[in-house]
Parts: sequence; structure tokens; C-alpha cells
Amino acid sequence: MTGQTTAPPQQVSLFMDQPLSLASGAVMPSVQVGYQTYGTLNDTASNAVLICHALTGDQYVASDHPVTGKAGWWTRLVGPGKIIDTNRYFVICSNVLGGCLGTSGPAEVNPDSGKPWGLDFPVITLKDMVCVQKALTESLGIDQLFAVIGGSMGGMQVLQWLADYPESVFSAIPIATAARHTAQNIAFHEVGRQAIMADPNWRGGAYLAAGVSPDAGLSVARMAAHITYMSEDALAQKFGRNLQDRETIGFGFEADFQVESYLRHQGSTFVDRFDANSYLYITRAMDYFDLASSAGGKLAEAFRGASHVRCCALSFSSDWLYPPSENKAFVHALNAAGARIAYTEIESDFGHDAFLMDVPEMDRMLAGFITRTAEERGLS
Amino acid sequence: MTGQTTAPPQQVSLFMDQPLSLASGAVMPSVQVGYQTYGTLNDTASNAVLICHALTGDQYVASDHPVTGKAGWWTRLVGPGKIIDTNRYFVICSNVLGGCLGTSGPAEVNPDSGKPWGLDFPVITLKDMVCVQKALTESLGIDQLFAVIGGSMGGMQVLQWLADYPESVFSAIPIATAARHTAQNIAFHEVGRQAIMADPNWRGGAYLAAGVSPDAGLSVARMAAHITYMSEDALAQKFGRNLQDRETIGFGFEADFQVESYLRHQGSTFVDRFDANSYLYITRAMDYFDLASSAGGKLAEAFRGASHVRCCALSFSSDWLYPPSENKAFVHALNAAGARIAYTEIESDFGHDAFLMDVPEMDRMLAGFITRTAEERGLS
Repeated sequence: MTGQTTAPPQQVSLFMDQPLSLASGAVMPSVQVGYQTYGTLNDTASNAVLICHALTGDQYVASDHPVTGKAGWWTRLVGPGKIIDTNRYFVICSNVLGGCLGTSGPAEVNPDSGKPWGLDFPVITLKDMVCVQKALTESLGIDQLFAVIGGSMGGMQVLQWLADYPESVFSAIPIATAARHTAQNIAFHEVGRQAIMADPNWRGGAYLAAGVSPDAGLSVARMAAHITYMSEDALAQKFGRNLQDRETIGFGFEADFQVESYLRHQGSTFVDRFDANSYLYITRAMDYFDLASSAGGKLAEAFRGASHVRCCALSFSSDWLYPPSENKAFVHALNAAGARIAYTEIESDFGHDAFLMDVPEMDRMLAGFITRTAEERGLS
Repeated sequence: MTGQTTAPPQQVSLFMDQPLSLASGAVMPSVQVGYQTYGTLNDTASNAVLICHALTGDQYVASDHPVTGKAGWWTRLVGPGKIIDTNRYFVICSNVLGGCLGTSGPAEVNPDSGKPWGLDFPVITLKDMVCVQKALTESLGIDQLFAVIGGSMGGMQVLQWLADYPESVFSAIPIATAARHTAQNIAFHEVGRQAIMADPNWRGGAYLAAGVSPDAGLSVARMAAHITYMSEDALAQKFGRNLQDRETIGFGFEADFQVESYLRHQGSTFVDRFDANSYLYITRAMDYFDLASSAGGKLAEAFRGASHVRCCALSFSSDWLYPPSENKAFVHALNAAGARIAYTEIESDFGHDAFLMDVPEMDRMLAGFITRTAEERGLS
């Protein structure tokens, strides 16, 4: 691994021999997966780390984003000599099923019709996403991952791995996440979906074929969601009631306040890199996520195969999207299932987005856990 | 006062002799005010109670709403023999400036053009709203109100009365409110405004003249706002992950969950009774609200004329829109200004909407305070 930040996009076709049966009952004859790898798989295939991305994330965890040109979203932690050291580990990150950056999703062409899937794409779940990831890691020759790591929806995938493929996981790091979506989580996502579907350019999901896109609706969805990613303290400290490029309020509907300008920017830049239907599908998958429900209502039962897994769970004090209480719920369940789990609630003002920010205590916890488990894995 | 629940709409023209100068510098040659009164003003005009409504409230505090036919929004507390007893007090409630139920606002006809104001209506502030209320109470022959009461934006008006017309207030009851809008408050409002303005039917605010209305955008705005009115606990208790009229998830984008169905209903019924431009103007007025800024940054200074006023402030533990900390900020300032203020943080799971709900402790606090201050006022 060199210090380069660009990497050629990787893509693979999976389920060519045996179709993918989705949780909904629908069947996909094959699935494309866009992914990136960093570092080298060792001879025993024991040094693979799977990083799972969040709702609007992607596989460019440690290399430049092909659309925005921005650095990878977790270069702070992933790279040569970093905490997730690509000189030592073979790091994999794949675009989730339903996504819009190389993996099969509603923006891809439906082979049957020759047109973009749109709403004909089957509704998918976190279980389906992880099933595709398992097939990808198998195709790369990996039986057991050294670690599965992710924050937010990435953390949900980590928990889904522990439920569905525990024997394929040596260690797991779920961060700022939950084992189910609450009513408030669902409510915020529903606002975003309604904003998209209210945009006349959405065209019942068939906007790509019509050559338009529901940018206004997707932008509003992103703005609403973005508020939930920050704590009130973070907003107060970053913006307060500061005005944007003006001395006094303008008595109009321009963005007088910095926080308005910031949100508008978040919305308008998001539409350049994300597909509106993907946003619908992935938020729906998250709303459907409820690991306990698939285990008779007992979350510990969902983790019954994970007693051998070393886990490190982190939550953030000011995260009101997936608050410490929701993290503790699955920590207790993993404990009850016999897994070895270290849990830390980290004091931070950043809110949910803390997992993407410079939080030294998070770094220390991750570095310590990864070093210890690497020794147990014989990777020192 | 009989037990009737309907009341004929009342309306008055104010500022006919002297135009209204707004905070923005704009001037309104006259203002229409829609209002309702309940009970009878006594001979000394000492028993008047002004109730200030919230963002999407109206003057129908104790009588049926003319559009929806629903009972008044605070009949729980206001009426014959109730805590705000219309057999004893003369209760006034007026539609705010910028509103859409009889008071001058963007949906009313601009006398100069003969067309609805739309965005030509001047941007207004809480100060302007209260200035109009002061003129209304004067026109009714009232020098000093026995009490000014309001929750949420109604509470902001109460605080504005204490800042601008303290000599006209004998007692004040601000509930679940704040002396300023925070960055998070502004952010949520901006999402709502962007949802409205993103609707092509908004037509730059000129939708009434075009015979259309931005219902989809206004509905999304209402849905986003509604989440902030409830606590996470309230949503969890009321809906949790319960499904709506189905046994299993539908793997689609219908309203599978009760919370989705509820929010959609909130959005779709709101557009029948509210004007989208009014929503823009009133949310803007709230975002501009910052009482300290008009007093050199010192909130106590804003209340310097209110030392004689008896105050009762109530906040709710689970209100994350205007949390106890924001209520305490103005309570401390009123204390510093020498006002007699009783403050209670009421334990409640309802969130911000608690002030509209059945909360016995709120009732007890209000009943006790009103009885005591009525005695001091010689109204026993």
C-alpha cells in the first residue's frame, strides 16, 4: 500500500450461479457489487477487515470519491500506519445493496427491461445487504473476517453479521448504532421519503428514464436528516445565531443565519452524489431493521452464535439519533449471549456524527482493541 | 357565558388613524385583526386575560374552529368554571399578525394591488405581533391585562409583552417557551420553509393568484415540525414499531408503521386549515426572536420594566424543542429584573406538546397561580 489516495473502482458480479433470495421473498438472478480494497490479504486470509458504510456513505473509505473528488470518508482512521493499518490489514469496503455507486440498486439498469430499475427494484433489508457482503468476502477467499467495523447503519450491518454469520467474524466493532429503528428514527426517515416523493420530478420513481431528478425533494430530505446527525450543542457551538455574510437580519427568506446556509449547502451538494431512489430504499431497509423481531423478540437470541466473538461497542453521549441507551440494549444482549464485549460511552458534543469526527477517546479505544485482538489472531 | 362551543368570528380594523411601523422599517397603513372573546369585561376592565396562540394555533381557543369544526384548542383549560374561568374573566385570543384566520397576513388581499399579498407582505416579528395585540386590547378598553398566557410561540409573545408593555401586564404565564430561537430551532424551521419553497405550486409565493397551493411542501413541513413537538418516549409509547392495518411489513413505500400513517395524517389535514406563506412568515418571526439582542445582549435588561409583574413559568422535562434550560434562562433574567416569578419544571413524557395535553401538575400550578393573583387583583 502506497500513500496514494486514488484507487481504481472495483466491481464484481455475484450470485451468477445461484440467485439471491431476498428477505422479501423476491429473487435476484445476480448482483453487481462495487467495492474497494486497501492493503494485501495475507497467505492465511486472516487479516481481512470489512468496513460497513452508513446510509449515505460508500466504498471510498480511504481513497478519493470519484464524483466529489473528496478524500475518503474515514481516512482519519484507515490507511498506511493508521489505526486500521492498511500495511497490516486487508481492508474491504463495499457499496451496500440498493446503493448508487456500483452495487445493484434502483438507479442501475434492470437487465429484463433495459431501463433503470426505479421502484421495480425489490425492497431490500439490512439482512440482504450483509448477505451480499458475505458473498463478496467469500469471492475474495475469506472464510472469517478479522474484524467487521461500522458506525450508524454500518454498525447495524456489524450486528447483522453477528446474527447471521457469527462464525465468519473474529471481532466486531459496532459504533453509534442500534439493533432496531425507533418510532422517532422511522418518523425522520418518513419525512425525508415524503419530501422526495412530493417532488414532481420524482415521477413515481421513474425519473431517470425521464431525464429529470427530484433534487429539491432529495435536498430537503438531506437537510432534515442532517439535523439529526448533530447535537443541539454542536449546532449552538458551530453556528449559534450567527448571521451569514450580513450585519443584521434581512427581513426576508434568504439564508440570514449560518445554520440555514450550512443546511442548504448540505442539501444541494448531496444531490450531486446520491440517487433519490437509493435514499428511499436504504432508509426503508433501516426502518425495517429490528434484530430482535427475527429472534422471537429476544435480542440475545439473535446473537446466540456469537459467543466467541470479541466485541468493542462505542456510543457518544450527545448522539440523539442512536443514543447510548439503544447501544446499551444490544451490548446487554451480546453479554447475555456470552460474547466478550467492551462498551464505552464516549463524552462528546458532536452528536451522532462523532464517529466521523476527531474524537481522541474513540481512537484510543479502537487502537487498543484492534491491537489486542490482532495479537489473539496471531497478526502481531 | 353559556356552554356554547360556537362563537361568531370577530374582526376589527386597527391602525386606521396612525400606521403601524414594523420592526423591519416597513409601514402598514392599517391592520385587520381576527379575534375571539369569551366572558364579559368587568366595569373596571380589570379581568381581561389575553391568551397568545402558538405557531399553527388560532383565536379559537374555546370555541369550534370554523374550518375543521373541531373544539377549541384549549377548551381543557378555558371555559365556564374551568381554570381560566370565562364566568370570571374576559378572555381574548387573537390571530397573530401574519396569520391566516382573519388577521392581516400574506393570504389576505393587498389593498394596493387587489391581489393576495404573497411575498409582498412585509416580514414581521414577534414584536410586531404583540404591538398589534396591544392595539387590540386598547380598542377593547383595556389598559392593563390581568394576565397574559401562552405556550410555545404563545409564550414568546408573553415575554415580548413583558419587554415592550410591562405596565400593561399584571401577571404573566409563559409556558414551554424560550427567549430566543436556537440554531437547532432555526434549522428545523428552515427545513420546513425549504420544503414549501421546493414545491412547484408555491410559485414564488404567488400561488393563490394562480389558483394552486403547495400542499405537498406544506405537508412535509408540518411532518418535520410535528416530530419536534413530541418526545422520543411519547413516540415510542404511542406508536413504537407498531404496524398500521397489517400483520407484517409490506416491503414497499406505503405507510407500514403507525408512526408513518400518523405523520402523513398530520401533514394532510394541516394543509386544509393553514396557509403556506403564513407558515413561512410566522416561522421566520420565531427564528428572528431573540429578546436579549434588543437589549444589548442582556436578557435581564429586556425585562427591566417588569419588576411589578407576577410571573408563573412552566416547562416540561421531555420538551426538546424549548427545553427546561431555555425556560430557565428567561426565568433567571426575570428574577434578575426583580419580577416575582415562580418556575416549575414539570415531569412529563409528552414532549413539547405537553402544554396542550392532560397534565394534572400543570393544571394545579395554573389554578393556584391564577387564584392567588386574582385575589391580589381584587377579582375574588
